[in-house]
Amino acid sequence: MSPLLIGGCWRSVLARACHRRLSAGYRGASGGPGCAQEPPVGACELRGELDRFGGVSVRLARLGALDRLDAAAFLKGLQAAIQQWRSEGRIAVWLHIPILQSRFIAPAASLGFCFHHAESDSSTMTLWLGEGPSRLPGYATHQVGVAGAVFDENTRKILVVQDRNKLKNMWKFPGGLSEPGEDIGDTAVREVFEETGIKSEFRSVLSFRQQHRNPGAFGKSDMYIICRLKPYSFTINFCQHECLRCEWMDINDLVKDENTTPITSRVARLLLYGYREGFDKIDLTMEELPAVYTGLFYKLYHKELPENYKTMPGMD
Amino acid sequence: MSPLLIGGCWRSVLARACHRRLSAGYRGASGGPGCAQEPPVGACELRGELDRFGGVSVRLARLGALDRLDAAAFLKGLQAAIQQWRSEGRIAVWLHIPILQSRFIAPAASLGFCFHHAESDSSTMTLWLGEGPSRLPGYATHQVGVAGAVFDENTRKILVVQDRNKLKNMWKFPGGLSEPGEDIGDTAVREVFEETGIKSEFRSVLSFRQQHRNPGAFGKSDMYIICRLKPYSFTINFCQHECLRCEWMDINDLVKDENTTPITSRVARLLLYGYREGFDKIDLTMEELPAVYTGLFYKLYHKELPENYKTMPGMD
Repeated sequence: MSPLLIGGCWRSVLARACHRRLSAGYRGASGGPGCAQEPPVGACELRGELDRFGGVSVRLARLGALDRLDAAAFLKGLQAAIQQWRSEGRIAVWLHIPILQSRFIAPAASLGFCFHHAESDSSTMTLWLGEGPSRLPGYATHQVGVAGAVFDENTRKILVVQDRNKLKNMWKFPGGLSEPGEDIGDTAVREVFEETGIKSEFRSVLSFRQQHRNPGAFGKSDMYIICRLKPYSFTINFCQHECLRCEWMDINDLVKDENTTPITSRVARLLLYGYREGFDKIDLTMEELPAVYTGLFYKLYHKELPENYKTMPGMD
Repeated sequence: MSPLLIGGCWRSVLARACHRRLSAGYRGASGGPGCAQEPPVGACELRGELDRFGGVSVRLARLGALDRLDAAAFLKGLQAAIQQWRSEGRIAVWLHIPILQSRFIAPAASLGFCFHHAESDSSTMTLWLGEGPSRLPGYATHQVGVAGAVFDENTRKILVVQDRNKLKNMWKFPGGLSEPGEDIGDTAVREVFEETGIKSEFRSVLSFRQQHRNPGAFGKSDMYIICRLKPYSFTINFCQHECLRCEWMDINDLVKDENTTPITSRVARLLLYGYREGFDKIDLTMEELPAVYTGLFYKLYHKELPENYKTMPGMD
């Protein structure tokens, strides 16, 4: 399914949501200079911007006159606007509501709008007007957590911790949730330092897991990625709030230890394999590439490609 | 950072948010049987449930009497409750608000609450009462998209499409966004079938990318995963809404074609490498494992481990 984007570059066309003024529901200005001169406000303020998918987007923050509108008047105005949008063949409505104008949410909900998402000081509601079930794209579905497997090739030792707050104490790799906009490798290095005091650098991704209905993710899914990190400091100074213990452990001891999580145990074996037969056997290397349309960059991870396959023009 | 969870099993303790009734702000019931007998409602209704991290969680849906409370009375009640929670040493407040009670959002915001998230018919607001900046965990930060590289080993051909709605027509693998709760491989198989009519099965993950500030992700980040799929039907019947063209292309031609996205080109080379030297060179295999505490299962992906490394008890 292609996402039905609210295209930024398609916003130049303004659609008038209605062509008549409401007389009912207007309660008058509550004061302030110039209020007496201003005309009543109503549905005509609900102007939307068209998007290239046939939707209309209304940003209440840009409609200053709504400050003087109560919830009942808004309901009538929105009702009229929806009728107009339907007659114009719009397939969806997006309503962007500043948090301090949240009195408009309940009336919109009574007309069938529901939350698409909300963050910080605004919420976004949607109403599907098209045929069949809604084809509007959902909001973010995953949190991303990252662990750092800090392995010292010289001593064959790996950095492990035990969480303070768990019922059973198991060895695991330090890690935690990515901050918004943070790269995988940066999360690993930051979390390892915050939890253990060890400085390290990103080498590769080793493994990732996907888990749904994660209890710590507000019902959303969890993507957990384990990175191989190379240490460049060795003195442990672990966070007493988060960790009960923190050690440099011989990789063989970690492979043999039964007191670990399944992922830790598996990744320990993977690292032992890499240590003995070459890390190229296990590493997913990273490269930064430019996105085609947006001017953004992204990071791509996969098994390293031999040099001749990177450059060859094809082979028959 | 450990997430400050609202622990389900820690909800047995009820904290009374206040110990006095509000007389101001009560506007009386608007009708209905039994209303005349009921006492005025106020801040005392804002009972919260403690969590194990020192936070308190208030679910307005469980507090039926709030139906008769207006926004101004709620503001006073919440103000009193916050004072009480502070005096009890609570570090955070979570406010869960049904969409039809959204009139309470703006007053909460005026006391410093902001949106944590909202979905469908409810929103969640938070207020940090602890020292320093908020340490509350954020909401989901990533959408997950999946593409299917359907490769037919017998003919050396791979399934590629051109999007209908792009400015420049480039060959790419069919794919799209994961539905909530959907496994990576299932998304790939579903999207390939929806776009091209080809039936296939999941073999491995080949590569993934992470991109931030994605224009189609409401400002959130994008995780895009490319799977290797094996076809078991071959007659193309592509979706005219989404695709302009759809073909089985020789893998060598795709490697040589300049009219592709960087990821498609890179994965084509990776597949050619796998085709010639063994797919074990490029595949990230998948295994389902049990989570330690939750009783859930997850899927783990990494470079396949040789049999002896899977089973050995360690080696010195």
